[in-house]
Amino acid sequence: MTGPHRAILLAHRPQGKLDVGHFREVALPPPGNPGPGEVLCRTILLSISPGSRAWMQQSTYRDQLQAGEPMTGYTLAEVIAENGTGIAPGTIVSCEGAWQTYCLLPAAAVQRVDVRGPLTHHMSVFGATGLTAYFGMHRLGEPRRGETVVVSAAAGATGSVAGQIARRAGARVVGITGSDAKNRLLEAELGFDAAVNYRSASFERDIAEACGDGIDVYFDNVGGRILEVALHNMNPHGRVVCCGAVSQYDGPAGSPGPANVPTVLVTKRLAMQGFVVFDFAESFPTALADLEAWVSTGDVKVLEDVREGLQSAPSALVDLLGGGNVGKLMVRVGPDA
Amino acid sequence: MTGPHRAILLAHRPQGKLDVGHFREVALPPPGNPGPGEVLCRTILLSISPGSRAWMQQSTYRDQLQAGEPMTGYTLAEVIAENGTGIAPGTIVSCEGAWQTYCLLPAAAVQRVDVRGPLTHHMSVFGATGLTAYFGMHRLGEPRRGETVVVSAAAGATGSVAGQIARRAGARVVGITGSDAKNRLLEAELGFDAAVNYRSASFERDIAEACGDGIDVYFDNVGGRILEVALHNMNPHGRVVCCGAVSQYDGPAGSPGPANVPTVLVTKRLAMQGFVVFDFAESFPTALADLEAWVSTGDVKVLEDVREGLQSAPSALVDLLGGGNVGKLMVRVGPDA
Repeated sequence: MTGPHRAILLAHRPQGKLDVGHFREVALPPPGNPGPGEVLCRTILLSISPGSRAWMQQSTYRDQLQAGEPMTGYTLAEVIAENGTGIAPGTIVSCEGAWQTYCLLPAAAVQRVDVRGPLTHHMSVFGATGLTAYFGMHRLGEPRRGETVVVSAAAGATGSVAGQIARRAGARVVGITGSDAKNRLLEAELGFDAAVNYRSASFERDIAEACGDGIDVYFDNVGGRILEVALHNMNPHGRVVCCGAVSQYDGPAGSPGPANVPTVLVTKRLAMQGFVVFDFAESFPTALADLEAWVSTGDVKVLEDVREGLQSAPSALVDLLGGGNVGKLMVRVGPDA
Repeated sequence: MTGPHRAILLAHRPQGKLDVGHFREVALPPPGNPGPGEVLCRTILLSISPGSRAWMQQSTYRDQLQAGEPMTGYTLAEVIAENGTGIAPGTIVSCEGAWQTYCLLPAAAVQRVDVRGPLTHHMSVFGATGLTAYFGMHRLGEPRRGETVVVSAAAGATGSVAGQIARRAGARVVGITGSDAKNRLLEAELGFDAAVNYRSASFERDIAEACGDGIDVYFDNVGGRILEVALHNMNPHGRVVCCGAVSQYDGPAGSPGPANVPTVLVTKRLAMQGFVVFDFAESFPTALADLEAWVSTGDVKVLEDVREGLQSAPSALVDLLGGGNVGKLMVRVGPDA
């Protein structure tokens, strides 16, 4: 061990909007040596994702986070000590770790990472968000040439990749973000055909105009009013891929769903399909091979937003919930191996 | 022509709940003789369906109904005169007709009915609602042996058939209605494994108890709070068949959707699929053959609620929206041929 051992806890559960005051940074005693079958990991990169807010609100696919518990999150780390695990020190692993500088974990809880190119790519396009975009768009959205695909949170980690996958399939792709600067980036750099700003007073008209032939596939990362507007513009037999609902996480649970659900599903014969990327685990190798090829040819460009230091994690999460990131948001906790 | 020609109009569009005062019965001049290519039909049976209320509220798969227009609806009728159509007087036809004693229609707007058994069955189990139940359950719900299937408006025209189809497939079937008497009927006569009353103060607990293993398929005819409660009890990877939303039609358009949509779809990986029966038209012959076989063996029992006289149509529709019918609700406008 080279540095002090620190962690960030959820100090108390937010009732309304999350702010940095809901967190507390604490100094911990050194984690000690690994017991039999354990590895000691030094955190390099920490993923900042909307799930961290959703887990404060309610159980999702994991249990609700309780006040006083350390924040958890996906990390990329270097094994610095081990005890009979066969995982050599210096190995880069991924794990569901914590907002901590070090983590002591059972060997079974970490996966070796075959590092190719920048390590940050294993957090973004080759990580959970890239895979989520891949399976959500490829397996559920299935855009066909000439169809209109709309992606919300389109400059985010998942949305930016999802949109480029749809464009690669020959669809006309329209992004939704909350910033004109992001929209220019999507159009100029990522090949989106159009992008609209949901904060604009003319949003409903803008999206209708940008999707003159209606929406065939809506890849939803946000839920709420944007989903409601998208449903209103869907074409008959359209598909709504339900990937997340970040607009709904930063407040009390149980807010009303989009108006006219389910009537609009019936009259337009829509399919709404929720999914979680881990259900596709057996197809990860195929997906990663495709994503690597598309990144190498430039068909998929990678947006990353890296913040420095463990202490920046709370403000990064608050920023994410307000749409203040461009691409995959992560925190560099320590230097690369 | 033998009787007076009468029609029921939508006098003014309801803003809140529909009542009989929103309708007006009028005497019309005799419809006259059919022009070239037309048939004159005498209405025998008039379908009363929730769509008639939905069309007052907004356009669905047909245009919004305007005040002063005659109410429209599916009818079974006898051709009593024709002009060069080749459809012999005495032929029984079905058509999207009106709340009228007679209708003058282009021949292309009517379909011959191959009457088998009671004519009312062509309005119920062999009509649109029976076919809706068939395709919704068979093609979209696809219940497997041992799964738990929940059907709302379970004593209604569609729900009662949908539930019996699921039970025939080996599923455990739980009905939801607003009446203990209907629930006893479902359990005693139609083979439902359980039935719960959504008007009961203990509804949420009752449905959870009746579905101890969770819900695999929810066949939704009602939307609103019942859909919200069903979503809460769905098993991972469950299917929600969106058939209708009768709880939402009798009031202003645009009321909020079920809470936690889309979050619950993501975390539970649910699929919600809306449909309209006409999309399956090419498979109607197969469906009708199956339904006829199941009715003849008693696997599917037919519930019908026949009201007498055109003048009873407004109160019948009001009754339907309040859950006052058992099985397919229809009005006998004239005697069988």
